[in-house]
Amino acid sequence: MEFKILKNKLHESIQHVSKAITNRTTIPILSGIKIDAHDQEVILTASDTEISIQSFIPKEEKENQIIEIKKEGSVVLPAKFFVEIIRKLPGEYVEIEVNSQFQTIIKSGTSELQIIGLDPEEYPVLPSIEENNSILLASDLLKSMIKQTSFAISTNESTPILTGVLWNVSNENLKFVATDRHRLASREISNTDIDLHLNLQNIVISGKTLNELNKLLPDQNSMIHIVFANNQVLFKIDSILFYTRILDGIYPDTSKIIPQVFKTEITVPTRMFLEAIDRAYLLSKENQTNIVKMIVKDHEEIEITSSLTSLGKITEQVKAEKIEGELIQISFNSKYMLDALKVIDSDHIQIGITGTMSPIIIKPNDNTNMLHLILPYRTTN
Amino acid sequence: MEFKILKNKLHESIQHVSKAITNRTTIPILSGIKIDAHDQEVILTASDTEISIQSFIPKEEKENQIIEIKKEGSVVLPAKFFVEIIRKLPGEYVEIEVNSQFQTIIKSGTSELQIIGLDPEEYPVLPSIEENNSILLASDLLKSMIKQTSFAISTNESTPILTGVLWNVSNENLKFVATDRHRLASREISNTDIDLHLNLQNIVISGKTLNELNKLLPDQNSMIHIVFANNQVLFKIDSILFYTRILDGIYPDTSKIIPQVFKTEITVPTRMFLEAIDRAYLLSKENQTNIVKMIVKDHEEIEITSSLTSLGKITEQVKAEKIEGELIQISFNSKYMLDALKVIDSDHIQIGITGTMSPIIIKPNDNTNMLHLILPYRTTN
Repeated sequence: MEFKILKNKLHESIQHVSKAITNRTTIPILSGIKIDAHDQEVILTASDTEISIQSFIPKEEKENQIIEIKKEGSVVLPAKFFVEIIRKLPGEYVEIEVNSQFQTIIKSGTSELQIIGLDPEEYPVLPSIEENNSILLASDLLKSMIKQTSFAISTNESTPILTGVLWNVSNENLKFVATDRHRLASREISNTDIDLHLNLQNIVISGKTLNELNKLLPDQNSMIHIVFANNQVLFKIDSILFYTRILDGIYPDTSKIIPQVFKTEITVPTRMFLEAIDRAYLLSKENQTNIVKMIVKDHEEIEITSSLTSLGKITEQVKAEKIEGELIQISFNSKYMLDALKVIDSDHIQIGITGTMSPIIIKPNDNTNMLHLILPYRTTN
Repeated sequence: MEFKILKNKLHESIQHVSKAITNRTTIPILSGIKIDAHDQEVILTASDTEISIQSFIPKEEKENQIIEIKKEGSVVLPAKFFVEIIRKLPGEYVEIEVNSQFQTIIKSGTSELQIIGLDPEEYPVLPSIEENNSILLASDLLKSMIKQTSFAISTNESTPILTGVLWNVSNENLKFVATDRHRLASREISNTDIDLHLNLQNIVISGKTLNELNKLLPDQNSMIHIVFANNQVLFKIDSILFYTRILDGIYPDTSKIIPQVFKTEITVPTRMFLEAIDRAYLLSKENQTNIVKMIVKDHEEIEITSSLTSLGKITEQVKAEKIEGELIQISFNSKYMLDALKVIDSDHIQIGITGTMSPIIIKPNDNTNMLHLILPYRTTN
């Protein structure tokens, strides 16, 4: 293998695939990045068995030469070092040449390196994916759906299925659900936003993986091609392929725990409510429960309080836009409430309460396609 | 005590004094910030016994009222919570009122807090400083002197005196020295830069403390008044007083270890040399010594190499501006060299070598008032 490549293009590609590199790998070859030099392109591959990322660098782009291929071939180079050194090389171009025993010479400007490479034949083969089941989704929409749900996954490895986000794909819409049994977040889009002719149930993708994917998704509105295979999902993002495993197991049916009728319905300005909860959180976070109390005293205002024996007490008043139904008081985890409020863009939110021991529902006022649920705490007074 | 104050002014002052708050204090009252409301000003005080910081907020500033004092008095409030909550309060103003038992009411907009305060009588009295010995120094000059020396202090608590920076004040100049026995950094300014009529030896101030001080020093060129007392130094920065202890012990005489005559003298471009060392560092940092080798092969270029058995080898060429004297090769800690090079602003540096086992001297080409020394490593080849 021998080629010469624009340093910045190589660096950009390394940045992309290095998101699949973990320090904790038990398979030595996976601590490396695989480089394949073909006639028309160079391909970089990295994997941690959960996710695999490939980046394709074309020989030419808009008639500008990016790569000069002198000899095709492959090698695996140590990822951590490769990521660091390429960026720091002094030249505009980098020359990479593999000798016998995968010994690799890297030259750039006044620098010359001899790196011990690994045998590319030992590198695992990526899954082959049949492209029968696929959807097209706008990048910014996928980004916001991930952001609005993935915070609610469980971090408890004893229920692995709940560490993922459920994707339900039906003729009508695409829905994401995440829950850790204490709170739930869901977000739905209809087929007006999406090219959808599928029915797929129980596709569960690790929340951590979706957050890694999020970093690779472009902000500008390009379309992401998503392919669903037996136990894998493949995301095609411009010149990047992102493979992830589907989590094993059956995702619990969460539809029954969501109340449809409320005894108390409140509409409040999102920002004022969020800031009041945020201050009350400061006086709740030192005991582990983060409990704050919300009191609906009349049909004008709600009061939020929290206290710590060692520190003191805080009382917040939030003027409501509308309060309908019973006056009530209810306690909940302020951290869960903050997490939900932070992903709501709408100016106002609706809070639905059915009783002191029933789930609290939070929805943006301008969008019925997002729902947050928080279980209340039983408190002594 | 009762007063009303502009929130932003109070927040700014809290930010300043909170730099003296540590989580590791064994004296409970020092986990608080002391607030004194006087007729004409409010004073905040924080201390960790090593350093103490006071911030003065005047009642009026440029004819704008900042504080409305309703009742003079004092209280100590829990620092960590106070720092967090004030910034987040909803109003433009904050009202603070102390009731019996130091119970403190804080009101701002729609928020009301009851905080358990502590008795200000228990708060330690700050040292009284005689102002006989003092100098005036420009803030930006003090900042650069701290930056250019403090990185070279020892982090080894078994030689506490070396965890400080030595200040030598004489009729002619002010000199900072820091060393950890493996490398040394010194920076000197002459009396043209400074109002100096003193002779003070063996003033040693903790490097960590100087870095905290650095954060409070303004970037714009205001004058800092520095007062030297028996075992304390006081820095007067605008409306802030910063007190620090002088370290106990005698600082070693470092003047004799600095060679005055060199066998080899090299002038190289700072940036190119720094970047070459930085790349070689990547192949030296996984063994603990960070050893790189510098080879003066001819009178045109120097070569820098480093290698790791598991990874490979790097060879760097740096074209010199000038090489005089013997051709030589010498090994040193690349991290120490990087630390020194990063604080040098000059385009070119001079490197002086007297032998493979003698100290290496690095000086900026345009300034003889800064000097860095690095002890070489004995290597087998």
